[in-house]
Amino acid sequence: MLKYLTDLIEIAKEQTKKRLAVAACQDEEVLRAVHEAAISGIVEPILIGDMDKTQMIARELGISIEAYEKIDVKELDKAAEIAVRHVSSDKADFIMKGLIDTSILLKEVLNKEYGLRTDSLLSHVMIYEVPSYHKFVFLTDGGMNLEPNLDDKVKIVKNATKVCKALGYDRIKVAAIAAKEKVNPKMIATVHADELKKMCNDGLFENGVIIDGPLALDLAVSKEAAKIKGYNSEVAGDADILLVPNIETGNGIGKSLTYFANSQSAGIIMGAKVPIVLVSRADSHEAKLYSIALGSMISELN
Amino acid sequence: MLKYLTDLIEIAKEQTKKRLAVAACQDEEVLRAVHEAAISGIVEPILIGDMDKTQMIARELGISIEAYEKIDVKELDKAAEIAVRHVSSDKADFIMKGLIDTSILLKEVLNKEYGLRTDSLLSHVMIYEVPSYHKFVFLTDGGMNLEPNLDDKVKIVKNATKVCKALGYDRIKVAAIAAKEKVNPKMIATVHADELKKMCNDGLFENGVIIDGPLALDLAVSKEAAKIKGYNSEVAGDADILLVPNIETGNGIGKSLTYFANSQSAGIIMGAKVPIVLVSRADSHEAKLYSIALGSMISELN
Repeated sequence: MLKYLTDLIEIAKEQTKKRLAVAACQDEEVLRAVHEAAISGIVEPILIGDMDKTQMIARELGISIEAYEKIDVKELDKAAEIAVRHVSSDKADFIMKGLIDTSILLKEVLNKEYGLRTDSLLSHVMIYEVPSYHKFVFLTDGGMNLEPNLDDKVKIVKNATKVCKALGYDRIKVAAIAAKEKVNPKMIATVHADELKKMCNDGLFENGVIIDGPLALDLAVSKEAAKIKGYNSEVAGDADILLVPNIETGNGIGKSLTYFANSQSAGIIMGAKVPIVLVSRADSHEAKLYSIALGSMISELN
Repeated sequence: MLKYLTDLIEIAKEQTKKRLAVAACQDEEVLRAVHEAAISGIVEPILIGDMDKTQMIARELGISIEAYEKIDVKELDKAAEIAVRHVSSDKADFIMKGLIDTSILLKEVLNKEYGLRTDSLLSHVMIYEVPSYHKFVFLTDGGMNLEPNLDDKVKIVKNATKVCKALGYDRIKVAAIAAKEKVNPKMIATVHADELKKMCNDGLFENGVIIDGPLALDLAVSKEAAKIKGYNSEVAGDADILLVPNIETGNGIGKSLTYFANSQSAGIIMGAKVPIVLVSRADSHEAKLYSIALGSMISELN
């Protein structure tokens, strides 16, 4: 089982090089990360955006983008459309967001004409390498879905388990997080968690996926806490995926991992036909590269 | 400024000894913590509960409870009532929950006849000593209020600032946590955070209290993240109190601090006339003692 995010880069290097369509590439941080991923042999960049600005940024960074495919387009929605069309016509394997509002990019991704839309829901999956935990934490969704309903959560879990599969997981332990273990109709998180567990027991999820909940975070990640509270399950203390009930919980746990627990991370948007890499300015340099490697590994499944 | 929870014990020791009414004291962990607090000179316990069981537990623990005031009562609601009445008749300074459902205890606390109820709202405040943060984190409310409305949040902030005051804070920086910094009508956390900031600017809170929000956790606790995102405020990167929008977020951040970031903690229920100590079985031995010391320090203000 993987434990370090640098492993993602090593694995991605060994795979076929993936073609990465960068939508609105005129961004220093994005260009730097894409260039590094290209040098590492992970991706072949397709730079789509304002080429004057992009060339200027490349010069300032002291990097050469000569070898990369380039499409000059100033309009942001057009850049997004071209990136998406590249995937649907099999000229690119996955997409990275550049200097463009997420909403503009996702509007094109969800456009039915271009064939990237699926029956699933777009959702954000983060992977954390947490020094104090014995394996990766997969967290979803602290970035996109505000307050998913039960049906949404089914799709969110399936998107996250796909990420685990791409990393070679056979057995995937999902903790449906709430504030308590007892089902309480006033706390929708507990009701949904209970439903998800039942659905999983009924075989609604893939083989190898096991869902437990409602679980407060302590029981999900600490065998010691589970033992003290007399809670026994295969997931307790050994969760892979933390499914959170709302965006604030996911965002709060995720940022606690980064800023309080010194974790490294990678993130990806799942639910479209191909993964979409979306990095934040405050992400570390490593996080951006890990996210591209992750996108590459998930594309390998397609 | 305090930085270590052991300081709470030192300060509590120097204050007048407080009388602690323990409701349903027949619990091994509670009895052990109360006894230790008594030995440290922080409290004079008033043990209220099933004395046969309590004496048996004391013998098993090898501790003597001879010197403590004891009231033998088997019924749990009666034990809670007696503890509450002890406070209203000035025979006790604060309360600790023993082997009794929180709801039973709080029902008595909120009973108008006994005079412990105030205009405020009961809310849970946790203090974390986080190795990777430069000062205490006060987190509220990850334990009691499910999804507080704006008025509730005003009261929750006031309860938390009282705890800070008890610890000697003059300037109290409150981050109203959300998933984003931009106000979005679809995300009530951002709307409330914005309102609270305005209320604070309008002087609705005490002198020395400064509220900023909406803030995602990274901006609240990391100056580096705030700098990268170009966010400038006195609170950013230096928050004392994290006000969370719902119980799952508070519970998730709090348990991340404990289980991923190796933090120590103390917790208390505020909003009644006196503080109420409520510890969880999974709390460390230290956490229980810190919580009693915290209750003692807050009682000092009364």
